[in-house]
Amino acid sequence: MDKPYVVGIDIGGQTTKIGIVDARGTVLTQTTVRTDTHPDVKDFIEDMSKALNQLLIEVGGIEKIRGIGIGAPNGNYYTGTVENAVNIVWGGSKVIPLAKLVAEKMGVPVALTNDANAAAVGEMTYGAARGMKNFIMITLGTGVGSGIVINGEVVYGHDGFAGELGHTTIVRNNGRQCNCGRSGCLETYASAIGVARTAREWLESSGEPSALRDISHLITSKDVFEAASRGDRMAIRIFDFTGKKLGEAFADFVAFSAPEAIVLFGGLARSGDLLLKPVEDAMNANLLHLWKNKIKIIFSQLKESDAAILGASALAWELK
Amino acid sequence: MDKPYVVGIDIGGQTTKIGIVDARGTVLTQTTVRTDTHPDVKDFIEDMSKALNQLLIEVGGIEKIRGIGIGAPNGNYYTGTVENAVNIVWGGSKVIPLAKLVAEKMGVPVALTNDANAAAVGEMTYGAARGMKNFIMITLGTGVGSGIVINGEVVYGHDGFAGELGHTTIVRNNGRQCNCGRSGCLETYASAIGVARTAREWLESSGEPSALRDISHLITSKDVFEAASRGDRMAIRIFDFTGKKLGEAFADFVAFSAPEAIVLFGGLARSGDLLLKPVEDAMNANLLHLWKNKIKIIFSQLKESDAAILGASALAWELK
Repeated sequence: MDKPYVVGIDIGGQTTKIGIVDARGTVLTQTTVRTDTHPDVKDFIEDMSKALNQLLIEVGGIEKIRGIGIGAPNGNYYTGTVENAVNIVWGGSKVIPLAKLVAEKMGVPVALTNDANAAAVGEMTYGAARGMKNFIMITLGTGVGSGIVINGEVVYGHDGFAGELGHTTIVRNNGRQCNCGRSGCLETYASAIGVARTAREWLESSGEPSALRDISHLITSKDVFEAASRGDRMAIRIFDFTGKKLGEAFADFVAFSAPEAIVLFGGLARSGDLLLKPVEDAMNANLLHLWKNKIKIIFSQLKESDAAILGASALAWELK
Repeated sequence: MDKPYVVGIDIGGQTTKIGIVDARGTVLTQTTVRTDTHPDVKDFIEDMSKALNQLLIEVGGIEKIRGIGIGAPNGNYYTGTVENAVNIVWGGSKVIPLAKLVAEKMGVPVALTNDANAAAVGEMTYGAARGMKNFIMITLGTGVGSGIVINGEVVYGHDGFAGELGHTTIVRNNGRQCNCGRSGCLETYASAIGVARTAREWLESSGEPSALRDISHLITSKDVFEAASRGDRMAIRIFDFTGKKLGEAFADFVAFSAPEAIVLFGGLARSGDLLLKPVEDAMNANLLHLWKNKIKIIFSQLKESDAAILGASALAWELK
């Protein structure tokens, strides 16, 4: 193959990861640059392209590169822009034509989408969803992100922003306040922050003994996971509660697109059976009869340290 | 064009409608046969094909027909089967290979799907969704059906049964019992039956005066519509309540597929602004900021008497 590699770039608020990937999903070489030190996007691209050019030396230069895929918060696949990305120092309240800027700088085609969609393409190309045409990727990190694949293609919708399943409403009355300005969003319950929030609420509202009471710092989802792993009953019930909310939401997602599987990714997905069991139970209890016990819930198969780069890179294989 | 026409067949529990349609969506000729008098599907097909052959004489015979589209309850597009259709006398607890049987009988290709999906294809081919690539069709009849179009194609999902939005959960605690065995389904609130149910519940639980109290038969959604049109306050609030439930659900649907529009069809959609206004208000109040006031809610543009045939027929244009 003339151009055997693709580049994956995952842009986060603090750090941007850059890697060169082969068709089997091996990250040949990777590096990072700071995102948050460049208020001007041109400086950021300058820095990023320098870092990328360093990597390219190792693989035989830009001639070996089929294209570049970028995963970025609020990335719009249709327009190649990053829109109002408040967590990116060069992004807030602006529409940045990032794909175009990077394509001009590097001289190869560039595709861009948000991080959850990139994760879905990564999973379909290299991971747990290989061979699947219909699945939903749910990323359980600080928030809850989603990438929906139907007929083998990511759903971008009319405007490029489809797949905001973390902001479907799971609690209609007196739901938790969400950063998006609404309340009761799935992400306020089923994210890492949601788990920590449940812990803090429950500790405050009950006198139930729990190892979580001994924690002196602000409780995190990791603390809850560790306590649950050691058998702490309240911590286990927090995972039950979180899984129930997720599973109830999943039943509605299935009614929409009848996926073969729902793929879980992200920090909270590392909780394994602690989370999986209540998710499956609640989903099956809420599914229409025809889908009961037929929808798989599986974990990402991408190595977490490589996943962001792999997801972004996978987009580039689809460039013509 | 050698084969300028298609056939649309809409199978209901009582009656089956059959029509021949041209490329502009004109129903050239149509007829009906009884569904409920044929416990054996072979007798049904025999009867239906006789009726169809009569129609064909008027348009120049089967040589003029590109294909046949069938809309049927529990119709599966992938397999061409009607599965466990309890409301069809020949359908309950069985898998009927209807598309194959009709294709063998008539000698032309046959496509089959459920009625709501057929309605979506009809609206895209001849109606309010012409030119749209991303929209959601919601049929508000006895129940609530849906057909989801993404990238110009109906979403069938992994198993052919995607798009059961009437069975997403809109009330999580103490929701109304649904025929599907679950509770709190959108269809228990936002269908014609749901509207009547709301009326009966409210009349019983309050002493509020309302023209609805003068009705001596079992109250229907049409009674509520007529009372609301005449200014009855409780009837108007019943539409507000119904619209709110629909609008809240629509906000979640938008988060899934970011459609250009949601198209309403069916008896309850004839309520016009009485329903539309509260739907729009509730949807916009629950949408993420990026979609507020951007998603159109529109009514079907197909003549109701022709719509079922048109929807089914539209499927046949997509046959190769």
